[in-house]
Amino acid sequence: MRSGNVRRLPFSSRHNLTEDKQMHFADRLAAAVRETGSITCVGLDPRKAQLPAPLRNSVTHDSADEWAAAYTQFCTEIIDVVAGKVACVKPQAAFFEQLGPVGMIALGQVIQYARQAGLLVITDGKRNDIGSTATAYADGYLGQASPWGSDSLTVSPYLGRDSLEPFVAMCDAREAGVFVLVKTSNPGGGLLQDRVTGGQTGYQSVAELVTELNASRLGQSGYGPVGSVVGATYPHPLADLRQAMKTSWILVPGFGAQGGGAADVLVGLDDDGLGAVVNSSRHIIFAHAREEYRERFGDGRWQDAVAEATREMNEQLRR
Amino acid sequence: MRSGNVRRLPFSSRHNLTEDKQMHFADRLAAAVRETGSITCVGLDPRKAQLPAPLRNSVTHDSADEWAAAYTQFCTEIIDVVAGKVACVKPQAAFFEQLGPVGMIALGQVIQYARQAGLLVITDGKRNDIGSTATAYADGYLGQASPWGSDSLTVSPYLGRDSLEPFVAMCDAREAGVFVLVKTSNPGGGLLQDRVTGGQTGYQSVAELVTELNASRLGQSGYGPVGSVVGATYPHPLADLRQAMKTSWILVPGFGAQGGGAADVLVGLDDDGLGAVVNSSRHIIFAHAREEYRERFGDGRWQDAVAEATREMNEQLRR
Repeated sequence: MRSGNVRRLPFSSRHNLTEDKQMHFADRLAAAVRETGSITCVGLDPRKAQLPAPLRNSVTHDSADEWAAAYTQFCTEIIDVVAGKVACVKPQAAFFEQLGPVGMIALGQVIQYARQAGLLVITDGKRNDIGSTATAYADGYLGQASPWGSDSLTVSPYLGRDSLEPFVAMCDAREAGVFVLVKTSNPGGGLLQDRVTGGQTGYQSVAELVTELNASRLGQSGYGPVGSVVGATYPHPLADLRQAMKTSWILVPGFGAQGGGAADVLVGLDDDGLGAVVNSSRHIIFAHAREEYRERFGDGRWQDAVAEATREMNEQLRR
Repeated sequence: MRSGNVRRLPFSSRHNLTEDKQMHFADRLAAAVRETGSITCVGLDPRKAQLPAPLRNSVTHDSADEWAAAYTQFCTEIIDVVAGKVACVKPQAAFFEQLGPVGMIALGQVIQYARQAGLLVITDGKRNDIGSTATAYADGYLGQASPWGSDSLTVSPYLGRDSLEPFVAMCDAREAGVFVLVKTSNPGGGLLQDRVTGGQTGYQSVAELVTELNASRLGQSGYGPVGSVVGATYPHPLADLRQAMKTSWILVPGFGAQGGGAADVLVGLDDDGLGAVVNSSRHIIFAHAREEYRERFGDGRWQDAVAEATREMNEQLRR
């Protein structure tokens, strides 16, 4: 749908996801990595100020509707570029939510477009709640009649085991996946994650829970539907957590712009080169603004910069 | 807007919130409690199966649009009943999100309607992320040009101090508030919250952080913009946390249906009867289905059941 004018995509509020019943989420992710030969996850984080000039300039009245259309255009053009070349994409809900309800329409369009392009979708919402409220989130994002229709969702574990179980139940019902925040690399992440109790850190407790939840749910790949989020800028925890959670797909954020390099993230892989996907957002989607690409591509050929940055990242992550 | 037919409210995607500049969030909440003589917070948790029959029956094609209209109608009629009688309302984002983008339009309408009715709004989204992503959530829900226009938002602390600071910065910019999950009463809540490190539980660490964040931001009421969520069914932690977080408004969920009684929650108050609001959702909004009200009101007079349940809860919480 590459075009000069920003246009709105239709959004069907209910679509049939029964075909997903066929294959376990972890196996779908393994297949995506094998088929593309890539462990790259492209983070779809649209931000007004950083959009390429042609899209930024298409917004003439600074209205939420216009921005939402520009975000949809931006993300779907990225999807066109990276489909078949990377394992998955990760739309960040916050940036769409920032625009209000019309932003959420755009989020739904982007998720659908990515799935139609054959990409596995990790919706990054870090949702969390208890009981029937957690079930509402799980049903909303992952359920059979989900209006969002995502393959998987990131979730936050502060509320404990029974806050994750409704999401896991939805994984069982529809072969969906979740990614539980385990260990993050931000400076303040240690507050709860690094507290040591009885020789075990907080994040190790969460990792243990992830493994327990996966135990009875393994796919043919040996992995379960309960993935984890582990930051890349702490290489040792990532290597240790790879061992501690042998059945959990690890989503490693922070490649490129956030500082982690290839050596730091490759320790997240198992011996078969599976078990981890590595996310890069800004470094790929705003590649046109990177020093090394600015002259070569610039805003006018921003899609080519995305293609080149994706190729480069795939290359760096190839062992 | 009480009426037999379900109708859609207009939703303006941008509205002026500058009037909020006048008064510190904590002082607005104190004023709301003083003016209404109530510490009740009404949880707006619309659920398809539990809606009163007239609203459920208005949905004839089981479409998301129809359900969203029914949710808006349900919540705005509740707001009509409780405005002036309770301190605040707490729409639960999950139930609106479950409907997809049209549900988010309904959420925006409900927030706006509540604010126009003079009610303080706590949007229960338990959002959390780091850096500029946290800023996007904060700007979206609490910012000057927020399309949602909420007074405050619940947030989750697993990512630590720097994940909360962008929300607190938005509180400074627009006199908004946040409520940080501190101690919850669900069975699994202890996983991270109760782990003891150096004589301190995880939730006590979070409580300490809440107090630190409030230190330089106190309003005339003596409270800061960083509230906390503390479950009612553990009376001792609530009493202890009241002492440990003298500057934090405590949102106490779980009154009524979830088991906490008046004695359990009143320990959350300070000597002036301020510092805590107590949430009840089902017990009020689905009061028509409660055994003691079913015959008296039933589905046909569900609004009167809401009024009576609100009166009763206010009575129980009056010291």
